[in-house]
Formats: sequence, structure tokens, C-alpha cells
Amino acid sequence: MEIIKTIPDMQKRANELRNEGKRIGLVPTMGALHEGHISLFKIARPLCDVLITSIFVNPTQFGENEDLEIYPRDFEGDEKKCKSAGVDIIFYPSTDEMYPEGYTTFVEVKGLSEIMCGRTRPNHFRGVATVVAKLFNIVKPHLSVFGNKDYQQAVIIEKMVEDLNFDVEIIRAPIVRESDGLAMSSRNAYLKDDERRQALYIYRALKRAEEIIKGGERDIDVIIEEIRETIESNSDMKIDYIEIRDAGNLGELEVLEGEILISIACFVGEKTRLIDNITLRV
Amino acid sequence: MEIIKTIPDMQKRANELRNEGKRIGLVPTMGALHEGHISLFKIARPLCDVLITSIFVNPTQFGENEDLEIYPRDFEGDEKKCKSAGVDIIFYPSTDEMYPEGYTTFVEVKGLSEIMCGRTRPNHFRGVATVVAKLFNIVKPHLSVFGNKDYQQAVIIEKMVEDLNFDVEIIRAPIVRESDGLAMSSRNAYLKDDERRQALYIYRALKRAEEIIKGGERDIDVIIEEIRETIESNSDMKIDYIEIRDAGNLGELEVLEGEILISIACFVGEKTRLIDNITLRV
Repeated sequence: MEIIKTIPDMQKRANELRNEGKRIGLVPTMGALHEGHISLFKIARPLCDVLITSIFVNPTQFGENEDLEIYPRDFEGDEKKCKSAGVDIIFYPSTDEMYPEGYTTFVEVKGLSEIMCGRTRPNHFRGVATVVAKLFNIVKPHLSVFGNKDYQQAVIIEKMVEDLNFDVEIIRAPIVRESDGLAMSSRNAYLKDDERRQALYIYRALKRAEEIIKGGERDIDVIIEEIRETIESNSDMKIDYIEIRDAGNLGELEVLEGEILISIACFVGEKTRLIDNITLRV
Repeated sequence: MEIIKTIPDMQKRANELRNEGKRIGLVPTMGALHEGHISLFKIARPLCDVLITSIFVNPTQFGENEDLEIYPRDFEGDEKKCKSAGVDIIFYPSTDEMYPEGYTTFVEVKGLSEIMCGRTRPNHFRGVATVVAKLFNIVKPHLSVFGNKDYQQAVIIEKMVEDLNFDVEIIRAPIVRESDGLAMSSRNAYLKDDERRQALYIYRALKRAEEIIKGGERDIDVIIEEIRETIESNSDMKIDYIEIRDAGNLGELEVLEGEILISIACFVGEKTRLIDNITLRV
């Protein structure tokens, strides 16, 4: 397994691989790898000749009062996990390499970036779109895999790829959960025991919504209220949002039909913001 | 010479060319080709195996009250000029092909896009950066040539390429002028005889500034005033701006030294906005 730290080296390697006719797969990550990431590697592995993952805690997608400083970092652990998962190359740049002094260019996917998580995290998706555009230009992948845990992110990346004509196939991967249902997240490492117990009610509320929809409920307000009650009567979590939207384009729904997304963001404890979602065909 | 009208066809062709080891050169244009564009073809021609030009009047770089509707279009004439200049492929997409309904993604080079021409044309450079990013992803050039007539545009494209890590070599080309000094521009076609005569004083004012700087003048305000007087005492043109800046990064100058840019924008007649510039080493 190779580790490449500079942009020119990575571009040179990508050019060599493409000239040899190799198909490049990219899984972009912020490290602190867990089973969710490993599942992305497993999905990408048979679809490409060379599997590249980037490990970069991207500062432009963090807000001023967010957890950039304390975000978990464990390159040695990540390296081992990449090796066992069959990763060929880790692209592991420094912050200065990615954002040298005087950096000023940003990619924005308007509309999609201001709703849901974008309301609480105003420049988050601008940072995501920008770093992914950079990674596509640096790693030059034929395909790239994104997890549905960050559902809005995946939709925004697909829209950016379509609008800016990146010649990259985007593959969406299902959420990986702990045995009790909690969605895997690097931020789960922040949770104290009691917070970990409370956090379970995010997924339980999603399952409760699924249950009442399957039972015939079609009133969006009633479903959202049921989710709110499930969370609030079982935890001290502060709900950031509960949204039910079109799973394809994240549009608002007049009536509950088609492929729908139910998405939740909650603050648990003082500093941890967790997100989760399910999709349903109604 | 091939003419390609769709994005998938152009990407397929670009992939084929790259797989054959061909070096692709791109000259992006809005058509209405003149000697200025031809000079870009001539510069690109020996540097690449396959010379591609794009002809696309890009709506996102025009403001609401600007000349998008009347911008000169002459595809047949352009085609002939491309053929004689040794162009291999014209990429000639429709507006719907480039900006389908629901288009929402933009590339912004902050800071550089808000000064000079950006003050009068607030979203102009966002449109330019966005369409060039798209063209780079569609045509996949190894190198691309930009004329210094649109000096600020060329600096912004270089910054976008650097910041977003596009693996494209940017080549800057000198301004081509009519025999009397007027900078070649597709917008010169708008000029009535008397306006054409007045427009000459843009370049004459630049030359006057050069003359007094060579004579020892170093006071930026005095030089700008001399330019203003040259224009205003010889024409009815309305000055949009006269700027003297660092030619490298367009930064403001405290003292007149190094490689400097003197840039002018003027409105001549009712609808025509012309720009011109010179660079000097002081």
C-alpha cells in the first residue's frame, strides 16, 4: 500500500495509472475509519483496478464553533484498516497542501446546500463540494463511493458532478449500523455512556415513523410529531431538524408518496451533533 | 475538422484522445472570432496534438441588462476561420446542453472576482469560472490558452486552476490590436464610426500613462488623472474604472514598482463597454 502526501505526486501517479488503462476508484474520508468506511472500500474494490482513499479532515466544511480541533484522528489505525480492506493508495495531504495561504476558490451547489444540515451549518456543503472537486482533480477517479449516512452530502455531490460535468461515476452506499441500530459515525467516539443510550432513539424514531407509515399514516406533520415525541420522551437530545423530503432531489413534499427520505439531526450532550436517515417507498 | 455538440460525445472523444496519448489543447471562446482568437489558436497549435476550441456564448457571465441577446454570433464564419487556423475539433454545445433546467452549481474565486470589472459586473467572473471549470471537465485539456485582453479573467482562471487543482497548464497570450491600436474584441462590432474613433483613446490613454511613467512619474493618482484627462478631453466615453495594480495578483499598490497592470473599462455610446490594458515593469 502506498501513502502519497503531495498533490503533484498524487496527480503524477493518477496520470500513470490512467495511461496504463487502470480504472481508479476513490473513497474520500476524514479518517477515524469505522465499519461504515470499510463498507465503502468493499463496494469500490471490485469496481476498480486501483482503490484510493483520501484521509483529510477538511477544515472548510467545519463551522467556527464546531469540532474541527477535536475531530478524531488516528492515522496509524486507519492505515492498518486500509491495508486489510485492500486499499492500494492512501492520499494523505496536509492542510497547507490542500489550502495554501491565499486560497480563495469555492464550489457551491445552491439550493441543496442551504436546507436541512445547511441551515445549522451554513458553509458546510460549500466546504464539502469544494474539497471533493479538488480531490476529483487530484486523484482523477473513474468512480467514487459516498455513504448514505451523509445523505444530503451524497445528493449534493451527485448534483455537483452533473452540473460541473465531472466525468466520475458516483456510487451511493447504504448506512452501516451498530448491532443496536446506531448509525456508524466517527463522531460516536464523542458519546459518553448515557449519551450513547440516548442516541439510539434517533434510529428508533426513524423506525417508529416507518412503522406508522406502513400502518397507513400519510400526514407529514403527524409523522414528524411522532418522531419528535419518540425522541423527546426518551432522551434529553435537542432536535436540530426532522425532515421528510423527496429522496431523489430533496424537494419538499406536498403529499407523502414516491421514494421519500426521513432525516434527523440531533444534538446529544453538549457538543455532539448526530445525523441519521432512512428512505422508504410510499 | 470535427464539430461536436454534446457533452457525452465530447468527453468520449477526449477520453479516446487521452488513451491514444494525444496532448489536448483548448481555446475557449464565445465565437465571433477575430484575429485575437486566431492568435490564441496559433499559440496553442504547436503545443498540442489536438487543438480544440469551444464556441459558446455563456449566459451565466452576462448580467441582466447586458448584451447577451445581441452578442454577435456567426458560426459559419467561425467554422471557416477555425479550419484555416488548424483547429481539429470545435465543441459547440447549446445553452440547454451546458445549463439544463435546474442547474445550480457555481465556482467562485473570491476576492479577485469582486474588484475591477467585477464591481460593474457582479456575477460575471462567477459565470466565467463556472463555464471554464465545466469546459475543463468536458474537453479534458492538457493546456488551455487565454488572452490578456481579458486580463482579470486570465488571472482568475489561473487562480481557480491552482486552488481547485485542475491539472491543466494555462498559457497567457498577448493582446492583438488593430493597426491603429484598438484592442481586438468581438464587441467592436457594436461601434458606430464616431464611437470607433472615440474608442481609440482608451489605448492612447494607456500609452500616455506608459509615457509619463517612463518619464519618471510614480504617483499613481497623477497617472490615473492623466489617463482620465486623455479620455475625457478627446471623447464622450463614460469611464467605468481606471486601475493600476500588481500585474501578478491584481493587488493594490502602495508604491509604483514591479510588474504593474494599467487597466481601463469605458462605456462608449449607449450600450458598448470596452476594456483594455497594458503591463509595464517599473
